[in-house]
Amino acid sequence: MENGNGSHEKWNFRGNAELNTASISVRGVLNTLAKNLNSDDRRPTIMLGRGDPTEFASFWTAPPAADAVSDAVQSFKFNSYCPTGGVLEARRAIAELLSCDGSNQLLPEDVYLTVGCTQAIEIIVSVLARPGANILLPKPGYPQYEARAAFDHLEVRHFNLIPEKGWEVDLDAVEALVDDNTAAIVVINPSNPCGNVFTYQHLKKIAETAKKLGIFVISDEVYGRLAFGSNPFVPMGKFSSIVPVLTLGSISKTWIVPGWRLGWIAKNDPKGILEKSGIVDSIKNYLDITCDPATFVQGAMPQIIERTKESFFSNIIGIMREAADILYEMIKEIPCLTCPHKPDGSMVVLVKLNLSALEGIDDDIQFCLKLSKEESVIVLPGVTVGLKNWLRITFAVELSVLKEGLQRMKAFSQRHAKKQ
Amino acid sequence: MENGNGSHEKWNFRGNAELNTASISVRGVLNTLAKNLNSDDRRPTIMLGRGDPTEFASFWTAPPAADAVSDAVQSFKFNSYCPTGGVLEARRAIAELLSCDGSNQLLPEDVYLTVGCTQAIEIIVSVLARPGANILLPKPGYPQYEARAAFDHLEVRHFNLIPEKGWEVDLDAVEALVDDNTAAIVVINPSNPCGNVFTYQHLKKIAETAKKLGIFVISDEVYGRLAFGSNPFVPMGKFSSIVPVLTLGSISKTWIVPGWRLGWIAKNDPKGILEKSGIVDSIKNYLDITCDPATFVQGAMPQIIERTKESFFSNIIGIMREAADILYEMIKEIPCLTCPHKPDGSMVVLVKLNLSALEGIDDDIQFCLKLSKEESVIVLPGVTVGLKNWLRITFAVELSVLKEGLQRMKAFSQRHAKKQ
Repeated sequence: MENGNGSHEKWNFRGNAELNTASISVRGVLNTLAKNLNSDDRRPTIMLGRGDPTEFASFWTAPPAADAVSDAVQSFKFNSYCPTGGVLEARRAIAELLSCDGSNQLLPEDVYLTVGCTQAIEIIVSVLARPGANILLPKPGYPQYEARAAFDHLEVRHFNLIPEKGWEVDLDAVEALVDDNTAAIVVINPSNPCGNVFTYQHLKKIAETAKKLGIFVISDEVYGRLAFGSNPFVPMGKFSSIVPVLTLGSISKTWIVPGWRLGWIAKNDPKGILEKSGIVDSIKNYLDITCDPATFVQGAMPQIIERTKESFFSNIIGIMREAADILYEMIKEIPCLTCPHKPDGSMVVLVKLNLSALEGIDDDIQFCLKLSKEESVIVLPGVTVGLKNWLRITFAVELSVLKEGLQRMKAFSQRHAKKQ
Repeated sequence: MENGNGSHEKWNFRGNAELNTASISVRGVLNTLAKNLNSDDRRPTIMLGRGDPTEFASFWTAPPAADAVSDAVQSFKFNSYCPTGGVLEARRAIAELLSCDGSNQLLPEDVYLTVGCTQAIEIIVSVLARPGANILLPKPGYPQYEARAAFDHLEVRHFNLIPEKGWEVDLDAVEALVDDNTAAIVVINPSNPCGNVFTYQHLKKIAETAKKLGIFVISDEVYGRLAFGSNPFVPMGKFSSIVPVLTLGSISKTWIVPGWRLGWIAKNDPKGILEKSGIVDSIKNYLDITCDPATFVQGAMPQIIERTKESFFSNIIGIMREAADILYEMIKEIPCLTCPHKPDGSMVVLVKLNLSALEGIDDDIQFCLKLSKEESVIVLPGVTVGLKNWLRITFAVELSVLKEGLQRMKAFSQRHAKKQ
């Protein structure tokens, strides 16, 4: 390597190439699409790429939640490091919240606070990544699991979600994947990226299958409560008498505050099986060597829950239901797109791309790149979430923006339609 | 495994044993000592185990800093996910802050925001942990580096800090440790756990040695600005024309808000060597798959810096100087303890334990366990930071509390003194 003076310098260090392959992430792909935007397009960019509607006033969090955080900062009581696992009062408040949701009855010690659900995934994957172990992940799914598993050398085995069956888990495939080194199955409900909500019966079947196979369930319920169709949201913890469940959650989506970075791992394990297997000790050990969520956000948690009125949640649910209806109807008018299941939960949906109806577009990535360049609309290529030639579209945006975004997608599709 | 009904269940999963060995942490050891406290002791527990004086009003953060955070929350502008690397205005504010400190001139893009310095360490270790690589760490040091390196399978090689030379780096030892797979040397200045501040000349020598060896410098300056002795604090970035430097820092200690969880990695690399070597890309890739600090704390950062008066820092420095004086004088009166270097920076100091002056105490761990049980005083056994039979004592507490703690340590030592 040559320095500015023309003399040679030798440097030994270099980056970690494993990270480059591990880091397929929603964020990374969206960054690439954002770089592809045409700066000459005077229209506002429409971001349908991720579940973060914080910029729209109709999605602003409940003012009492913001007040609770201000009060916690101004109390000067929560400026310290937090204890391992989090501030006790916050753990208690979340344990009660989850217990009310009809989950197993939880104690404060069953709840470990994390820096959003992102860190909850990081912790779980690290805990399971002993040499030789493997984990079952849904396809399509949420790529953060794959990225952390690649980084920690935890083997991943994929089972399919079946679009024709409302994105239910292919349980026969699950049975065929398991061996003695399989630790757990990940279920995301309400589903990211599919937008469905599993029925009570299907969740029970997943629990029974897991028990039969000797594996536990990791239930990613970050979109918990955001169910607006005919299936009510049922927490997996309800089935913890059948199989141990680690529930991952956060306030990011329910309170529409992804930037507050407060999530959790909740242990639904009335028989103490996770304790005996050493999983709980490994979680605690990992917590001792990683970073925590801001102490004052934890300190505010009891008040955030207590002071937020039910009308805040019902209002958000109402907007989401209307958005899902609009999306479903408008997608029908775009010939190259098919939505196999009208979303009834989460903030996202998967639609199928019919490439044979398009000219000069070879795959979902090309579709998304051209769409961002030509229409200033960003949607996520399905390959990012495990399904090539599908698109993940977020409908959690102001309704007028959603309509405008889908109209631009329609115009784009018409412009690129294969000539008959 | 037997279940509650007496029938046998087979579960495949178990915890990650590697985590159990990796997790030697200050927090874990302090948790163990806290469990050992005698609940019958009516006296308040005196915590001299870690640098977190937030409970004492004299160490409370500047009210304008708390106001800045409240304002950011109440603006509803910082509830979203943040961009990779952090909110631009916060990166700019920190770049300017570090440039003012006499470091290299930094741009916003040179600063990556992290969840405290804990995550900064996590990121750096992950980035360097390619197979076969090694890193040089100080002994004594900060065990978070060792813990993350063990977890990520990054080989660690230790060089000594020399108490007789004011805890300077043994540079001859550094030269002997390096091979072609050595990536970097970690320097902690002001020093945790030693309490010294390196001179300009010594830092320059470290930079020159690193350059000669082809490695870069990781400068942990989390205690930057907290210098109150004869050596002024000099940022390692000053020597970035000699060798590339990644500076780790946070607001935890300088603003006395460890619970706010905002730290950074700052790239001091005017020749672009870290860019060319792939280190920068690896950092960005890791940032895409990990969690972020709370967006509104980032959003508050420009105001936190702008509104905090200089008198806040000078007041803290004044208290720390007085505390260091008290500690140094009172340690002299405890026969089994020796302080080789009066602290002139950070919040901690290392003192040597003379076991031959004690009866029935075999090592530093036993000393600390008995001290917590008998005197409700918690100090950190030196073995945690790499030096067996030393103690790390935090002097960042209210002065009356410090005096009381040291008096109890003196009484303890007298009670356990070897009979002549």
